[in-house]
Amino acid sequence: MAKPLGFEKPLGMRDILPESLAKQRHLERELRQCIERWGYDEISTPSLEYFDTVGAASATLTDRMFRLLDKQGHTVVLRPDMTTPIARVVSSLYKDVPLPIRLYYQVNVFRAQEKEAGRNAEFSQTGIELIGDASVDADAEAIALAVVCLRAAGVETFRIAIGHVDFVDGLLEEEIEDEPIRNQFRQFLYERDFVGFRQLLATVDISTEANSRLEALLRLQGGKGKIEVARKLAGNGKAGRAVETIASLWESLEAYGVTEDLLIDFNLIINLNYYTGVVFEGYAADLGSPLLGGGRYDQLLSQFGRAASATGFAIKMDRLLQVTPSVKRQAPARVLLVYTEDCRGTALAEAQLLRKDGLVVVTRLVSKIDEKQVGQEAGFTKVICMTQQEE
Amino acid sequence: MAKPLGFEKPLGMRDILPESLAKQRHLERELRQCIERWGYDEISTPSLEYFDTVGAASATLTDRMFRLLDKQGHTVVLRPDMTTPIARVVSSLYKDVPLPIRLYYQVNVFRAQEKEAGRNAEFSQTGIELIGDASVDADAEAIALAVVCLRAAGVETFRIAIGHVDFVDGLLEEEIEDEPIRNQFRQFLYERDFVGFRQLLATVDISTEANSRLEALLRLQGGKGKIEVARKLAGNGKAGRAVETIASLWESLEAYGVTEDLLIDFNLIINLNYYTGVVFEGYAADLGSPLLGGGRYDQLLSQFGRAASATGFAIKMDRLLQVTPSVKRQAPARVLLVYTEDCRGTALAEAQLLRKDGLVVVTRLVSKIDEKQVGQEAGFTKVICMTQQEE
Repeated sequence: MAKPLGFEKPLGMRDILPESLAKQRHLERELRQCIERWGYDEISTPSLEYFDTVGAASATLTDRMFRLLDKQGHTVVLRPDMTTPIARVVSSLYKDVPLPIRLYYQVNVFRAQEKEAGRNAEFSQTGIELIGDASVDADAEAIALAVVCLRAAGVETFRIAIGHVDFVDGLLEEEIEDEPIRNQFRQFLYERDFVGFRQLLATVDISTEANSRLEALLRLQGGKGKIEVARKLAGNGKAGRAVETIASLWESLEAYGVTEDLLIDFNLIINLNYYTGVVFEGYAADLGSPLLGGGRYDQLLSQFGRAASATGFAIKMDRLLQVTPSVKRQAPARVLLVYTEDCRGTALAEAQLLRKDGLVVVTRLVSKIDEKQVGQEAGFTKVICMTQQEE
Repeated sequence: MAKPLGFEKPLGMRDILPESLAKQRHLERELRQCIERWGYDEISTPSLEYFDTVGAASATLTDRMFRLLDKQGHTVVLRPDMTTPIARVVSSLYKDVPLPIRLYYQVNVFRAQEKEAGRNAEFSQTGIELIGDASVDADAEAIALAVVCLRAAGVETFRIAIGHVDFVDGLLEEEIEDEPIRNQFRQFLYERDFVGFRQLLATVDISTEANSRLEALLRLQGGKGKIEVARKLAGNGKAGRAVETIASLWESLEAYGVTEDLLIDFNLIINLNYYTGVVFEGYAADLGSPLLGGGRYDQLLSQFGRAASATGFAIKMDRLLQVTPSVKRQAPARVLLVYTEDCRGTALAEAQLLRKDGLVVVTRLVSKIDEKQVGQEAGFTKVICMTQQEE
């Protein structure tokens, strides 16, 4: 006999077994129901795309994409996210559909895994895109829907932090002339490295006032009250306009009744180059990495030739699974129907009747009923034996 | 401005737009509900596998697989089917789980497209695997469940044809000594080319009796009555045992109450090398290609080191979409709520209340309510306008 085949999977790829998958499907249903109530329609795009099309425009860094070579020698990518393919659709198949367009998805996306075995190369996301609405109420809609989704999923303790890329950028531009140094500051904020930020601040040659202004940036996380603090700090320029956007956003979010789950974070940076306005990121208690991320990306669509403002978010389902209670399967009764050949017809017909009544029925043909063995079957709420054999 | 990005997708890859996807999701839910009542648990495996593991063992021909090169130079495949990955799981992660094991899946699988633009490279399948039950009742379960699935999906007119690989093989082995010629006959049956079969039959040097016996094979398609005809034709060898298996199978299927949707086809060949016993294939009226295919494959599991009998089937969702009635969306009312800024708070809060009542609500901020324009909005059952502006 030939040597058995191996069980190896490409790095970061995994099988999802029934218990975990059942919970994922449950969460997907809950999210789907929420999102559809807000008028979003589901869309799907290919797992595989050309790097030159979708890959090149994606917010995902190139070296984190799962790149492959096809037989013709083209570089292809396993879809790194759904935002870029949806931008492609809105600019091509949907080019005559009037804006705004509301779409959602529940698909797997992919990331290259170089060495670490602990990370997933393929994982499920549920997300929405609201395309062609530049108003702050569109930002509010995306954030309010994100809150409603996490509530519907049963996440017990979570917060969604809200920021604006122009606040940090505006403040830095006003105080730091050198762009590479500004980018260093941004990098520290992106990495949530406040120590690094302060160390860099100590080395730059700026006025004491400028220094304390940038230092104050790090403390701009909290409730509604931080808007007033930020307003005083920002002045009338780019950063100031960002504060007014956040203030208006907050009003909408109060109308939605979701502010208790929100946090204002004026130093939030969740991607270094991609977003163009309001951004947000969701965290759950006891989870190191964000549950969801999103924001306004008004520059992406024009790359496909249909300039349009846009906002959206994606929820990482693996992480949502970790912070939601197990599903109490309101499982239908699970029946094992054991039968001998002489009762086959009656047994199989009976199984069908029980299934029509909504029960889960597993049938099993045996040569002889062994009451003891049958009694030990795990995972069934009831065992039925059918035989004409004499005991 | 840079040249806009292209819209190209790899050959055979496609976007699935909301209307079509909504129907697919509806069918997936119906099938899922059916299959779970028979005690099957859902499983998922990676989109990408090593060719040397899953690719090498798959029933899909190598040149029809979607093969790619990863960065390390390994040949990988986009999963060509789910049967082989499930065999891998049953032999590794599930090696201590007692047989029989019942699993199902709803995933996309992939096929290479070389030239034809009309075929899909990625398509959705719903299928089941029943592993570790060699009885004819396991074959009956797979076939009965396939019928129940097609009925639940609302396919109006369909037939599932049932055959057995040993019937054709046995008859050919008894009459034709030369294996390459036997394979030519099998190839003609596989391609449903009865003309080619008869032409070949006219050229082989066998007795008149043998000739008419093989000719009779082509007429062995029909109802239960064909079993008796086949029994007389087959004798007591391999083909004869296959007839007895089909006879016993039919009895079980009668108990399930599904025989009105079945057809016996003693010359059915649905894969040249993969199946080892009962096979079946489902057709719908007005559809050129089969809706589903399945059968017994008792040799696959041993390739992964856990010898076990197995049967299963896969439904091609794209084809199912073509032969099922459109979903009458028992759609909830779809409300467009148009508001001016002075009513923002009231409008957004009202939208949330309506959503809680189960309505779909799309909100839209406008600078001024234009009754005429609002009246022309398509796709909404109701339009609500909220403003404090004077008319």
